[in-house]
Amino acid sequence: MQNNLSIYNSLTRTIEPFNPLHPPFVGLYVCGPTVYSDAHLGHARPAVTFDILYRYLLHLGYRVRYVRNITDVGHLENDADEGEDKIEKKARLEHLEPMEVVQKYLNTFLKNMEQLNALPPSIEPRASGHIIEQIELVKKILEKGFAYEVNGSVYFDIVKYSQKFHYGKLSGRVLEDLQENTRIIGGKDEKRNPFDFALWKKATPEHIMRWPSPWGEGFPGWHLECSAMSTKYLGEVFDIHGGGIDLQFPHHECEIAQSAAALGNESVRYWMHNNMITINGQKMARSLGNFITLGQLFSGNHPLLHQAYSPMTIRFFLLQAHYRSTVDFSNEALIAAEKGLKKLLKASVTLKNLKPSKESSIDIVSLKARCYEAMNDDLNTPLLLSHLFEAVKLINSAADGSSGMTADEIKETGDLFNTFVFDILGLTDESENKSDEKLTSELMKIIMDLRLEARNKKEWAVSDHIRAELKKAGIMLNDTKDGVTWERD
Amino acid sequence: MQNNLSIYNSLTRTIEPFNPLHPPFVGLYVCGPTVYSDAHLGHARPAVTFDILYRYLLHLGYRVRYVRNITDVGHLENDADEGEDKIEKKARLEHLEPMEVVQKYLNTFLKNMEQLNALPPSIEPRASGHIIEQIELVKKILEKGFAYEVNGSVYFDIVKYSQKFHYGKLSGRVLEDLQENTRIIGGKDEKRNPFDFALWKKATPEHIMRWPSPWGEGFPGWHLECSAMSTKYLGEVFDIHGGGIDLQFPHHECEIAQSAAALGNESVRYWMHNNMITINGQKMARSLGNFITLGQLFSGNHPLLHQAYSPMTIRFFLLQAHYRSTVDFSNEALIAAEKGLKKLLKASVTLKNLKPSKESSIDIVSLKARCYEAMNDDLNTPLLLSHLFEAVKLINSAADGSSGMTADEIKETGDLFNTFVFDILGLTDESENKSDEKLTSELMKIIMDLRLEARNKKEWAVSDHIRAELKKAGIMLNDTKDGVTWERD
Repeated sequence: MQNNLSIYNSLTRTIEPFNPLHPPFVGLYVCGPTVYSDAHLGHARPAVTFDILYRYLLHLGYRVRYVRNITDVGHLENDADEGEDKIEKKARLEHLEPMEVVQKYLNTFLKNMEQLNALPPSIEPRASGHIIEQIELVKKILEKGFAYEVNGSVYFDIVKYSQKFHYGKLSGRVLEDLQENTRIIGGKDEKRNPFDFALWKKATPEHIMRWPSPWGEGFPGWHLECSAMSTKYLGEVFDIHGGGIDLQFPHHECEIAQSAAALGNESVRYWMHNNMITINGQKMARSLGNFITLGQLFSGNHPLLHQAYSPMTIRFFLLQAHYRSTVDFSNEALIAAEKGLKKLLKASVTLKNLKPSKESSIDIVSLKARCYEAMNDDLNTPLLLSHLFEAVKLINSAADGSSGMTADEIKETGDLFNTFVFDILGLTDESENKSDEKLTSELMKIIMDLRLEARNKKEWAVSDHIRAELKKAGIMLNDTKDGVTWERD
Repeated sequence: MQNNLSIYNSLTRTIEPFNPLHPPFVGLYVCGPTVYSDAHLGHARPAVTFDILYRYLLHLGYRVRYVRNITDVGHLENDADEGEDKIEKKARLEHLEPMEVVQKYLNTFLKNMEQLNALPPSIEPRASGHIIEQIELVKKILEKGFAYEVNGSVYFDIVKYSQKFHYGKLSGRVLEDLQENTRIIGGKDEKRNPFDFALWKKATPEHIMRWPSPWGEGFPGWHLECSAMSTKYLGEVFDIHGGGIDLQFPHHECEIAQSAAALGNESVRYWMHNNMITINGQKMARSLGNFITLGQLFSGNHPLLHQAYSPMTIRFFLLQAHYRSTVDFSNEALIAAEKGLKKLLKASVTLKNLKPSKESSIDIVSLKARCYEAMNDDLNTPLLLSHLFEAVKLINSAADGSSGMTADEIKETGDLFNTFVFDILGLTDESENKSDEKLTSELMKIIMDLRLEARNKKEWAVSDHIRAELKKAGIMLNDTKDGVTWERD
């Protein structure tokens, strides 16, 4: 299979041609959420970024196995090896079994993903569902001599690993610097070196999520699940691993180390990272009061929001920036995105109603080629959108009569919209789906007023005709002594 | 907490008062689907039955932990101990990884449950996610002497178990009869007795879903997961276990045996079973050509269906029968259900628009009491519905002026509908949610025709007024030389 797709590989820090290991198959693994609270803005960006990648690979004809994990155990507070498990802490606060917490927030996350029109992954494996696989991986790393057991916990030995492999190759961190930095925090640790990380943690007596292991009862370290599950479902070497850039270190660096230690070689061929979202120029954090969940965003229910923003507005907003750029959220930027999206979708409707002219105004072959070029250039969605807005301009000038489009051009431009706007960018016209109760009642008011006027003028035929037409549309009028009411049949 | 709920306990074959072990908490476990194909009619009945139970328990003020499992490994063809795993077989046929099959059909199942307005369970554990727990349970049963290992598989020893416990107490099967029946099928089995069942099966070399165990690589027997997961999330003794009556034997009988063997006592206090669905008097089976998936039912896309039936029609249809009665699906019965549901929901709208009268016609206190009595009598939903249709009759006669309802009665009847129709029976008015594009276009056609007529009569003020009113409703009219078109703003 041939393609001209190039993607930025975080590992080599260059844009590389994308050549999968076993075409037409592509293995794609993306780090999913830790399901201990409502999905927020930060979850929308990787969801949309890797959905675009997935959609584009499918469009190019690849058979993609897209695995996105659900972290439901082992992710401790502060992303470090100490502190409470994030899910257990929430379970304690909400008086729930940890798996009730997981189910609740998993349901919300999946709902939000559907709202954002992100396609469901092929497999959504859960960390707690792969404890055996993780234990087997720890055993392998121990056998190879890159880990050590202390008091029922197992740690990865970074010094030992660094003698044979390059720890820090993804993130660019240098071992000596890490040594300097972590020495200060370290202290009464049972690790040989403070920057070593846990593969398996001994469970304290009050810890709920625990499993038997060769080292006693415990639970897996956070980084372990992704190495275990990606290789289980995609093979020991696979094509693409994606995630947010905040996961590059330590999470992804540790994944590389785990796989290399256990297998003797790295598993991932292309590492892809989406950049972060800021809010009004600030990092999003609960302590700053600018923490916005997707539910709040869609309903407008947050002090920082001037209005509700629909899932498609958020999606469009994110696509206006390249996935490797930072993006700043503000009401102004979102309102602009809302307008832009509306303009794009409206042009698609205008196009359908366009009367063909003999005059030609659009070089559709070149436009289409440039759309592909933009996507092939590391998924350059802002550039793609600017090409699509060229088409919008031409459609609108054809509509107002200042230029024209031939029947063929109208058809081909329609195909272009279907391919790029709807299939690849995954945008949808939300107004087509949403409930129209309000509009129905407004239209009914207009009709009822017109009918009343006809009756006042004793135009009984008109009044009866309206009643008959409404009946055909499934609406019954009831004349009562207080006036006319209507209801659906 | 006080309640008057009684439920039929399949174990004692009597209707018993429901007294949970640790009020206000209730532990509820229901057997979920084996996700290897689209959810069908047979899945709708337990989904609705136990959703009603869950909703009613919540309504009574209980804090319910509702666990419904997902079987994604170990369920072999013919529900027996031999043959291919149902999911692996489908994976082979569809050229997918088994967990891709699981994800695909799990997504469809959950979508269907949402369409049927069945509330999501508190926890949806998966068999493949609890292999360690299942291995630990097998170890316990082996330790207690009620199982034996042969060639890497472990079987439950029913003869040994029967010396201490009563195998067959739930289903009423008699060991001697089982012995007679299975001897004929048995043969070259490695089991001591042909009716013994597998706790752990050795994986053949081509078997994909496999895990290491003390007995070599293998996978759990089908019955094991429910014992392991129910006690993990609900405790060693818990309140209610539900499922379809087809699961009573061998599945639930084996669950009882596993728990009793491992723990020394049974785990489940109340066993509840919903009865089966037949189609035009026949059992549903792929071989009979009457196998209808929920997707087909909702779209009408099956040769046996005269039309599409909405999820709420199906739900209402099931509620018209007691859950312990069989139910026969036919187009006639479904069309009748569709009408009944419409009548019920219409009355709820009529009620809202009713003008209070001074005259009283309804004994709302008695009606409400009878509604509770019906639910308390083993969830007698058909009786409940007949009470609610009494209210419908009164509402309609108040609406046509032949009787009256006071303001208080209108309010209390509204509360009654909210409680029983919407909260407890979980019915919704689908017309409120569905897309109204069709209606909008029909209403717009009526308005445009009226406007055209006004213009033909040169009533410019009317024509301009209509344009202005539409604009307020968000609809723009475009006069073109070919006529008037409209679009949303």
